[in-house]
Order: sequence, then C-alpha cells, then structure tokens
Amino acid sequence: MLIVGERINSSRKRIRKAIEERDAALIGNEAVKQVEAGATHIDVNAGTNVSGEAEDLKWLVETVQDAVDVPLCIDTPSAEAQAEALKLHKGQPLINSITAEKERAEGMLPIVKEYDALVVALTMGAGSVPSSKDDRMEAAAAIAEMVQAAGIDLCNVYWDPAVSAVSADQKAALDVVATVRELMDTYKGSHTICGLSNISFGLPQRNILNRTYLALLMAEGLDGVIMDPTEKHMMSTLMATRVLLGEDDFCMEYITAEREGRLAAYENHKPVMHR
Amino acid sequence: MLIVGERINSSRKRIRKAIEERDAALIGNEAVKQVEAGATHIDVNAGTNVSGEAEDLKWLVETVQDAVDVPLCIDTPSAEAQAEALKLHKGQPLINSITAEKERAEGMLPIVKEYDALVVALTMGAGSVPSSKDDRMEAAAAIAEMVQAAGIDLCNVYWDPAVSAVSADQKAALDVVATVRELMDTYKGSHTICGLSNISFGLPQRNILNRTYLALLMAEGLDGVIMDPTEKHMMSTLMATRVLLGEDDFCMEYITAEREGRLAAYENHKPVMHR
Repeated sequence: MLIVGERINSSRKRIRKAIEERDAALIGNEAVKQVEAGATHIDVNAGTNVSGEAEDLKWLVETVQDAVDVPLCIDTPSAEAQAEALKLHKGQPLINSITAEKERAEGMLPIVKEYDALVVALTMGAGSVPSSKDDRMEAAAAIAEMVQAAGIDLCNVYWDPAVSAVSADQKAALDVVATVRELMDTYKGSHTICGLSNISFGLPQRNILNRTYLALLMAEGLDGVIMDPTEKHMMSTLMATRVLLGEDDFCMEYITAEREGRLAAYENHKPVMHR
Repeated sequence: MLIVGERINSSRKRIRKAIEERDAALIGNEAVKQVEAGATHIDVNAGTNVSGEAEDLKWLVETVQDAVDVPLCIDTPSAEAQAEALKLHKGQPLINSITAEKERAEGMLPIVKEYDALVVALTMGAGSVPSSKDDRMEAAAAIAEMVQAAGIDLCNVYWDPAVSAVSADQKAALDVVATVRELMDTYKGSHTICGLSNISFGLPQRNILNRTYLALLMAEGLDGVIMDPTEKHMMSTLMATRVLLGEDDFCMEYITAEREGRLAAYENHKPVMHR
C-alpha cells in the first residue's frame, strides 16, 4: 500500500513560510514525522509560488531527501518544474499528476518514461470535475491511450478518481467506490490512489467520514492513499482495514503499531461477547 | 437499520446485580441511555440465571418497557422463557435467536409466528461454530426450510452469520462479509444482523477493528447490528457509513447527531484540499 504523506504543501501557512525562509529543520522534521508514522512517500508541493515553483521544489527535494530515505511524490502540474526537481531526486519518484488534458499529459509522460516513475493519473479532463463513473472511465480511457502510446506500463499508473463532496451529491461517494473497482478490473496491473478529505467538505467531524471512506475504498481494492499519516485515527483505520481484509499476516503490523504507540487510544469499552 | 442495544446483559456484573436486586432505576436508565443514543431495539438477556431466567426476563420486559417506548430483543435460546416474556411485551418483538438446530428452531418458530416477530437466525448448527461461508450457507438453507414450513415470511428473518475472531483465522472477516451479501442475494427480502465484538478478540484497540468492520459489513448490505449505541466512536462510524452509502438524505441524520453532541469529537485536523 502506498501511503503518501501530504503535509509538506505550501497551501498550509506554516509550510509556505518555511519554504520561503528555507527552513530546512522544519521541513526535515515534517518529513521525519510522516515517515515514522508510516508514510512510504512524501509529497512535496510548492504550488503557491507561481514564479518560483521549480526552485522551491528543487530545494524541497534536496531538503526532504537529506532528512529521510523514502522516495518523493512531486506534486505539480508543470512538466518543467517536475523535470527540474527530478534531476535531484533519488529513487523511483511518484509524479503527481497527469489528467486527460492532452497538453499536460504529453509534457509529463516523457518524464515518467525517462525516470521509470510511478504516476498519479487524475480521471478528469481539462478543468472539468468528473460527476459520474462514466465521466471518470472516459477520462481514464483517454489517459490509458496516451500512457501506452508513450511506452509506459500500466503498472506504473495510480488512478486517482478525484473524490468530490458527498454533501453536494449523495451518490458521489459510492460512485468513486465503484470507479475504483472498475479501474482496477479494466486496467489490470494498474493501481488506485485517493486523497480523502474532499469527501467530507461542508460536513462536521470530517475525520470520521474521511477514515470510514478509506475503509470502504480499500475494500474495493484501493492500494494508495494521499493523507496525513500523523493523523492517528486515520492511520488506525488503515491498519485495522488491512487486518480485516486479510492483508496483515498474523496481524503483526497492527500489533506492532499498538506496541509502538501508533494506534489511536480509545477509552476502554468492555465488549459484550456474543453467544 | 436495526440498532439493537446490547448493554442489558446479565453477563455484565453491574447488570446481573441490578437484575438480582430488581433495581428498576438502573435498568430503566440503561434503556433510556441506549434509546437516546439511537437504539431501535433493546436487548434483554438474563442467561446467567439458569433456574430463574424466565422470571428475570419477565421483570426485564416490564421494567424496560416502563422506561422506553421501543420494542425489545428477547435474548434466550429457551422457547419457554421466550414465550413467558413475550406475554408481557408491547409491539413487534425481535426474538434472539434460532439456529439450524432442529429442536431449538421447532420450539421457537411457533412463537415467532404467533407474535409476527422478527427473528435472529444464527447461521450455525448445534454447538458448532461455522468456519466458512459454505458452512454458514448450509445452516441458513436448513433454517430457511424450517422457517418457511412454519409459514413465516423471510422478511421477518435477520440472519446472523456468527462473526468469529480474525486473530484466529485471517480470512474470517472477509468470509462473513461475503456471507452477508450472499444471504441477502439468496433470501430476497431477508435481513442481516451482526454482533461485532467477536471479530477483534485477542487484539488490542478492539474498538478500532469493531467499528471499521461495521463499515465494511454495511457496504455489503448489513442492515442490523447488535452493539452498545452509547459507544460514540462506533455510532459515529455507523452514521458516517450511512452518509457514504447515500442512505442519509441530505446528511441530515449525521448533521443532527453532531448538533446533539452524539458524534465523537476528535481534535481538529485541518485537511489539505486536493486539487
């Protein structure tokens, strides 16, 4: 399971300031915390600095990889910034992201090929937010064609079905769940990844919805997630779901997480045993 | 969705004592708390008092229905005790439970018919704990035959697939998930119900596993649960799952629960919005 730590994102005020001030200690600490909590990849995003994005990303790649040993998820729609940042990257990168937009994909795919990178493919066209499974599958078909034409194996693709708010459309959550299954059935060997927080937009106690949604998506095969791994309730749900899906041999990951204090602790509720 | 509050069970020391002492205030309070938290039915179980079970159940039925207006789930394998208790019951009862054991079913089914009761049908034979979907479906077939021979509609049946511990058998959790779907597909109009706590037996932080399992089962159609509704984390997951499955119109149940302080509160985690 790919767990992409999302905390180093310039849309967060603390992070933006740290990038501006080249505060390597703060950024390095954010990376270490996420890896210790279970992140397999660290996302870096400097999207708020339009003119200096490439320079910021280069600094982030070096700074984060000085602090931790995991590969990064370089989060920019700009092929130029992506190419610049990747020159400094060690290991197999995750490129975030392409869409069905032809120009964006055609700029990015040669880079994916060059680095044998994993790539997040958002199942949406230029600027249009998908509103149904059919929309998403249509965008995926256009992307798959471009990916294969570029000589890239579908195993390198992580489809992101672009989660939208359930408060705006009651069917939105189940639609994406069905899309995850259909994407993995249609494009054998490919993967799926989601950011979860959009699902709960406009609703209270978003954490409860986000983490419950993660469990439902994993049951359909989701094998990547973009999240804050230091958020214990979410990470606990992820690990419990792996136990329940039979993916955690002898429950050892779960038990180890508890021993290391990585599971969220709840008040002791004494269950009634059933029959 | 049937939410059966499990707290009034004589296997719990406080409850056993209250039953022995005929402490109507304590039992009534347990019932009120559960209904306020969302229980649609209150389970009453006096199984620890072998010789006086029927008398205890009669007292519990009257005491609980003096305190709250919901129907009860009368929890005894004894047809005699069940029949005694039901004489005092108001509304449509839920009878807990029958199995594929012929003698037990044949004692109980005339009572189910007489009261047009709902009935929990454990998909297991005499004393044998089912270890696979096939075992469970075989027991269900035997039960369905007896139920229909007794002139009882399958709509009155809540199948309980008898959850077992995932720590003992890694496939146990998914097996029951698949059984829930197959039971509802095979016996159209029938329902499914689970007690959840057995799933996490032998593992730490059982609450996390129990509630995550509830979400996975509901996604497959589970429409009944035997639980402690005052356990806020579990109830929050139940309500979030209803939102995500599109079963909570305009998210009003969820939003109302938050307004009334019935959702678990978590530290505020500021999510990163995705693209």
